[in-house]
Amino acid sequence: MRKVYLDHASTTPLLPEVREAMIPFLGETFGNPSSLHDWGDAAREAVEAARAQVAQLIGANAEEIIFTGSGTESNNFAIKGLALAQQNKGKHVVLSAIEHFSVLQSARTLEKWGFELSLLPVDKYGVVDPKDVRKSLRKDTVLVSIIHANGEVGTIEPIQEIARITRESNVVFHTDAVATAGTIPVDVKELGVDVLSLAGNQFYGPKGVGALWVRKGVRIMPLLDGGVQEGGRRAGTENIPAIVGLGKAAELAKSTMAARIEHLTQLRDRLLNGLPSRIDHVVVTGHPQNRLPGNASFCVEFIEGESMLMLLNSQGVAVSSGSACTSRALKASHVLIAVGISHELAQGSILFTLGIDSTPEDIDYVLEVLPPIVDRLRQMSPLYAKFIKESKGGK
Amino acid sequence: MRKVYLDHASTTPLLPEVREAMIPFLGETFGNPSSLHDWGDAAREAVEAARAQVAQLIGANAEEIIFTGSGTESNNFAIKGLALAQQNKGKHVVLSAIEHFSVLQSARTLEKWGFELSLLPVDKYGVVDPKDVRKSLRKDTVLVSIIHANGEVGTIEPIQEIARITRESNVVFHTDAVATAGTIPVDVKELGVDVLSLAGNQFYGPKGVGALWVRKGVRIMPLLDGGVQEGGRRAGTENIPAIVGLGKAAELAKSTMAARIEHLTQLRDRLLNGLPSRIDHVVVTGHPQNRLPGNASFCVEFIEGESMLMLLNSQGVAVSSGSACTSRALKASHVLIAVGISHELAQGSILFTLGIDSTPEDIDYVLEVLPPIVDRLRQMSPLYAKFIKESKGGK
Repeated sequence: MRKVYLDHASTTPLLPEVREAMIPFLGETFGNPSSLHDWGDAAREAVEAARAQVAQLIGANAEEIIFTGSGTESNNFAIKGLALAQQNKGKHVVLSAIEHFSVLQSARTLEKWGFELSLLPVDKYGVVDPKDVRKSLRKDTVLVSIIHANGEVGTIEPIQEIARITRESNVVFHTDAVATAGTIPVDVKELGVDVLSLAGNQFYGPKGVGALWVRKGVRIMPLLDGGVQEGGRRAGTENIPAIVGLGKAAELAKSTMAARIEHLTQLRDRLLNGLPSRIDHVVVTGHPQNRLPGNASFCVEFIEGESMLMLLNSQGVAVSSGSACTSRALKASHVLIAVGISHELAQGSILFTLGIDSTPEDIDYVLEVLPPIVDRLRQMSPLYAKFIKESKGGK
Repeated sequence: MRKVYLDHASTTPLLPEVREAMIPFLGETFGNPSSLHDWGDAAREAVEAARAQVAQLIGANAEEIIFTGSGTESNNFAIKGLALAQQNKGKHVVLSAIEHFSVLQSARTLEKWGFELSLLPVDKYGVVDPKDVRKSLRKDTVLVSIIHANGEVGTIEPIQEIARITRESNVVFHTDAVATAGTIPVDVKELGVDVLSLAGNQFYGPKGVGALWVRKGVRIMPLLDGGVQEGGRRAGTENIPAIVGLGKAAELAKSTMAARIEHLTQLRDRLLNGLPSRIDHVVVTGHPQNRLPGNASFCVEFIEGESMLMLLNSQGVAVSSGSACTSRALKASHVLIAVGISHELAQGSILFTLGIDSTPEDIDYVLEVLPPIVDRLRQMSPLYAKFIKESKGGK
């Protein structure tokens, strides 16, 4: 059976070049960068080379990159660390309603600590209106965090415009770029943000490593206390193989980005156009144009999404019904609700996230196997039966 | 030149078997355990198998193991998460003065949040007196954290006795077992603790992974918010290769522990006895018997430790002058100060931490090359000149 992995937003495979770069650090070169001897020196040099590679990917200075253990850690670090470091200035934080759970739940923890949140709405395409950001700002606002692109619906947000507003008001602006860094061009100077999160396993680098870029001069409180690593801002023995892998993945992402985007966009559009022409009652979610090149997200009416995923899996196709972090929570995605999808329709969510190894044949295979699955499930759906009856009655 | 790595407390090399276990998860088997498809299933099974292996190492139930990104994260999670989860009960926390910085600095952060700390002293061997724990407990004490063994001086603490006291008083007891789990027998039921930290890179497993064992029923607040992973207690995509490696390292540590301990103890004693017989004015730090099998720690009088390390490094020998986390901070170790070593003598600290691949020849090589290094450094030391002059004058 054909095996088709279209769940790259959950995690990407390692590129062979990334794995090769990591392997020596799983062997002979195992030192601790903090040690004052040759073993430590080799580890330290590897970490600093990776730091430069990651900095280059996002147009930053190397010394502003802090390595972390994941995109989730980067987001927790940013939201809690930035808010706590400025709490004498105020306790108001602004987010969009479609942040990743690692941002949203970190902000909920801030609420327990006496902070106040403003959650900004998005339009039906998932776009935050910069005017809403401006209106939300108060004297005591210390942090704005808006996701660069949401991995579930793929919509890319107007980060530059928002950054102009936060800069005028002198409020720190964080963006969660976990879905974009390494995938589309991300330049911290062009974007104008102050702090940015990224994660290795989103662009063919390793799991267990992320980074937080913090513009020089921005104050942040550590999330992990206890050591002088990462300039005293993130304690813990550095995960050298993973950091080296992240660096290599960043280098490869930068050098091949244009070709990757072209490839992904073609396949994505093949799917975005192909699926609604083969299946009735399918809604494309997210922005029609301004979306991640590998993201094709839909809601299929009269369907329970999990069954659709299971049946696709039995045909060798791996997809998701939303964020991997919530797929096991079996709740309607907060992102789909925010773009105005009903709870009922959100149950039929299906998210294809394509990768650099995806092929037109993979897409055609999905277009072939999915319609009979949808038919089969609808035949068992009381809601669909009701809909058919009513539409016949209406004629 | 001979290469002798005696800095295993900083980090250990990966065992080849551990690396072999990890490699598939850097390749074909790259899924996200939260995904509802075959790729996710394979990843999830691997994580659960590793969880069982780690649980077996410490006599715990698998569902009580939470994977983290490092020993430092485990300690931050424990100290902050346990204290915050119980703050309505009280805000008093008890630690020893020789905790690892990740415990100590986490507790300093608690102080900023209104908690009060009691730091218990240790005797000249680095031992915490259980009576001091009893005396320190108050009505509002919510957490006691005492390190199982301090990696800098090797002293093993009377955890069982302390646990009897905390249990009587119904206070949660955490132990930082980063230096002991996988090295000496650690059984959570025998120890009687409630929460325990461990780290992979301390027993020939990977960097970038640790675990926190939390006894069922003990409340803890997450440090990393935002996902349902690890039972909702630690968000973030699981670092599968590292988790698999930790599991394998745990299995190997358990099955070979007795032989490892015998080997390490012999080499350690060869060094503990050999060094003072070849160099004058050397003080052994830590407990004479009740210490980690691979730990031989000394202070060499009239010497600046960093120069000693550099010269040893130029002879191919890697050692440390204390915790890797502080070696670049160039401060006298808080652990040595706590056992009553003067700031001056603490400057001459030298820490040998042996590994399972260390050989008698390695030890003999150190015993051969170190004395001339000490002689050379002392000839440049004004303090040594003064001492010699005074002792001659005294005769």
